[in-house]
Amino acid sequence: MSNKKVVVVLGRTSFGRTLPEQQSAVKEAAKAVADLVEAKYQIVITHSNAPQVGMVHTAMTEFSRLDSTYTVAPMSVCSAMSQGYIGYDLQNAIRSELITRGIFCPVSTLITQVRVDPFDQAFANPTKIIGRSMSEEEAKEEEKKGNHVIKEGKGFRRIVASPMPLDIYEIDAIRALSDAGQIVIAAGGGGIPVLEQGVKLKGASAVIEKDYTAEKMAELLSADTLLFLTGVDRVCLNYGQPAEQPLSSLTSAEAREYIAEGHFPEHSMLPKIQSACTFVANHPERKTIITSLSKAKSAMKGRCGTIITEG
Amino acid sequence: MSNKKVVVVLGRTSFGRTLPEQQSAVKEAAKAVADLVEAKYQIVITHSNAPQVGMVHTAMTEFSRLDSTYTVAPMSVCSAMSQGYIGYDLQNAIRSELITRGIFCPVSTLITQVRVDPFDQAFANPTKIIGRSMSEEEAKEEEKKGNHVIKEGKGFRRIVASPMPLDIYEIDAIRALSDAGQIVIAAGGGGIPVLEQGVKLKGASAVIEKDYTAEKMAELLSADTLLFLTGVDRVCLNYGQPAEQPLSSLTSAEAREYIAEGHFPEHSMLPKIQSACTFVANHPERKTIITSLSKAKSAMKGRCGTIITEG
Repeated sequence: MSNKKVVVVLGRTSFGRTLPEQQSAVKEAAKAVADLVEAKYQIVITHSNAPQVGMVHTAMTEFSRLDSTYTVAPMSVCSAMSQGYIGYDLQNAIRSELITRGIFCPVSTLITQVRVDPFDQAFANPTKIIGRSMSEEEAKEEEKKGNHVIKEGKGFRRIVASPMPLDIYEIDAIRALSDAGQIVIAAGGGGIPVLEQGVKLKGASAVIEKDYTAEKMAELLSADTLLFLTGVDRVCLNYGQPAEQPLSSLTSAEAREYIAEGHFPEHSMLPKIQSACTFVANHPERKTIITSLSKAKSAMKGRCGTIITEG
Repeated sequence: MSNKKVVVVLGRTSFGRTLPEQQSAVKEAAKAVADLVEAKYQIVITHSNAPQVGMVHTAMTEFSRLDSTYTVAPMSVCSAMSQGYIGYDLQNAIRSELITRGIFCPVSTLITQVRVDPFDQAFANPTKIIGRSMSEEEAKEEEKKGNHVIKEGKGFRRIVASPMPLDIYEIDAIRALSDAGQIVIAAGGGGIPVLEQGVKLKGASAVIEKDYTAEKMAELLSADTLLFLTGVDRVCLNYGQPAEQPLSSLTSAEAREYIAEGHFPEHSMLPKIQSACTFVANHPERKTIITSLSKAKSAMKGRCGTIITEG
C-alpha cells in the first residue's frame, strides 16, 4: 500500500484527432489511470492538446472570416477551450472506468494558466505549427496582424512560439484537490501561456511544451514520480535504426550524454528526457518513468518502461 | 467578520457577446466579487453562457461544414469549451481585482457536469434557441439528424431542451476548493447536461437554465445565501409598466402568489424567483438576494436588492 504522488503525462495517442476518436481513445488512458488508482497512488494528470487546440483554433478563425462581428479567438482562448473539451471527455472516461471497478474517486478538470517570460528566446524563434494550410494572400494577412507564418509545401502555415513554463497559477487549487484525495486533470496542452503585466495576466500567442509543464507541476507538487505515457514502451538509443537499443534504466548523467549525442528527437522524446533530468536533479528519492499507455502499471512496478533517476 | 458561504450567480450582462466585450465586462463582475471577498464571504461562482456557447456551437458547426473530416461538436462539448473560455477570462479578472486590493486568494474554474433526467418533459418540448438562422434546406438537414428546429422570421433556428438539474457531478471538487478558502467558478452555463447510462455519462442535447443549477449548487454546498446578480437592482411587480413596484423583500409565500399572478417573465426573472423559493424552503436561516452587479455589496448589507426568505 502506497500513497505516493504521481504526475501522469498523457501524450497525443491518448486522444486521437477528431471528436469520436477522442471519446474512444480516452478509454485506454482511463484504464491506465484506474490501474494506478487501484495501486493507491495519488494522481494528478496533465496531457497533450495538439490536434484539439488546432481544431478549435481553425474553427474559430474560419468562423471569424464568415461572421465579421466576431474577432479571431487568440491562442490563449483556444487553449482554454481545448482544456475544457479534453478534460470533459477524459474525466468521464476515468470516472466510468473507476465505477466499473467499484472505486469511488472524484475526478475533475481545472482550467490552468502557466506563466511564461516575455523575453523567452522562443518568442523570437517560433517553432510550433498551428492551424490549416493557407494561401499566400491569407499568409500575408496573418503577417499584417503580427503573426508568424512559414512556407510548407505549396501553402503557408502559422507558427507560434514555444516558451518555457515558469509557474502554474492554479497550483493551489490543484494541490487542494489532490490533498483531498481527488484526481485532478490540469494544465492541459502545457497550460494556457500567459505573460504577467502588472496585476494582469495577458494570454501569450504561444504553445508551451506539455512535457516541461508536467515537470514544473511535479516539482511544485513535490511529486514522487513523473510518469510519461507515450507511444513507446521504452526509451531507445538509435531509435528506429538497426542498432536500436531499448533502455530499462538510466541515470540523469547518462541521459545528458545521450542527449548530447543526439539520440532523442527534438519534438517527442527530447523534452521528456530533459524534464526527467530536471525533475530528479538533487532528489535521489524521485524518479521519472517513460513508457506506453498499456505498460503504465507494470512500469510503476519496475517491470517495464525506462526509469530515470539521479546520478 | 463573517465567513458565510455565498453562491454568486452572474447573468449575461457580466459577459457581453464577443471576445473583447467579455474581457471588458468581466471587470465589473470581478469588482462585485472582490467586494464580497473583502467582506469575508466564502464564494462559489456560477454564470450564464448563452451567447458564448452559441458562438462556439456555431463556429464548430460551420467548421464541420467546411472540413468534412470533422464531425459536428455536440452541445455538451460546446458547453465544456464555453466553460473553459468564460472561466479563463473571469478568473483572471477576479485575480487582478483582488491583487489590486492587496488580497491573495486563489481563483479557479472547474469543468462541471450536471445530471438531467432522460424522461424530463423538457426533452419533448425543446425551448432554448441555439445557433444562427438557417435556410429551409439546412433546417431539413438538422431534422434528419434528429435535431429540432423552429421557424423564426424568414429562417429557421435550432432549439434544444432545457431540463431541470438533478445533481452536480463535480460537487466534491467544488466543496474541497471552497473549504480550502479558495474561490471557485463552476457549472458555467448551467453545467454540461449529461444523462446517466449505466456507468457512463452521455452528453445531452440540452441547455440547463443556470438559475436552477445555481440553486442546486447552493443546496448541495449548504450555502447561506444565493445571490443573483442580474440586470435590475430589485425585483419588480408590473415590471416596465406605469404601476411598476420594486420590492425590497418578500417571503416565499408572497413570491409564489406573484408567480401565480404572472408577474415574472419566463426566461429571466421567473427561474430566479422559483429558485429563491426552493432554496429557502424549510430553511429560515437562508436567504436569496436578487440585485444588479453594481449593487451586490450594499444588497448583502440589506441596503438594496430584493431579499427572499422563507415564509
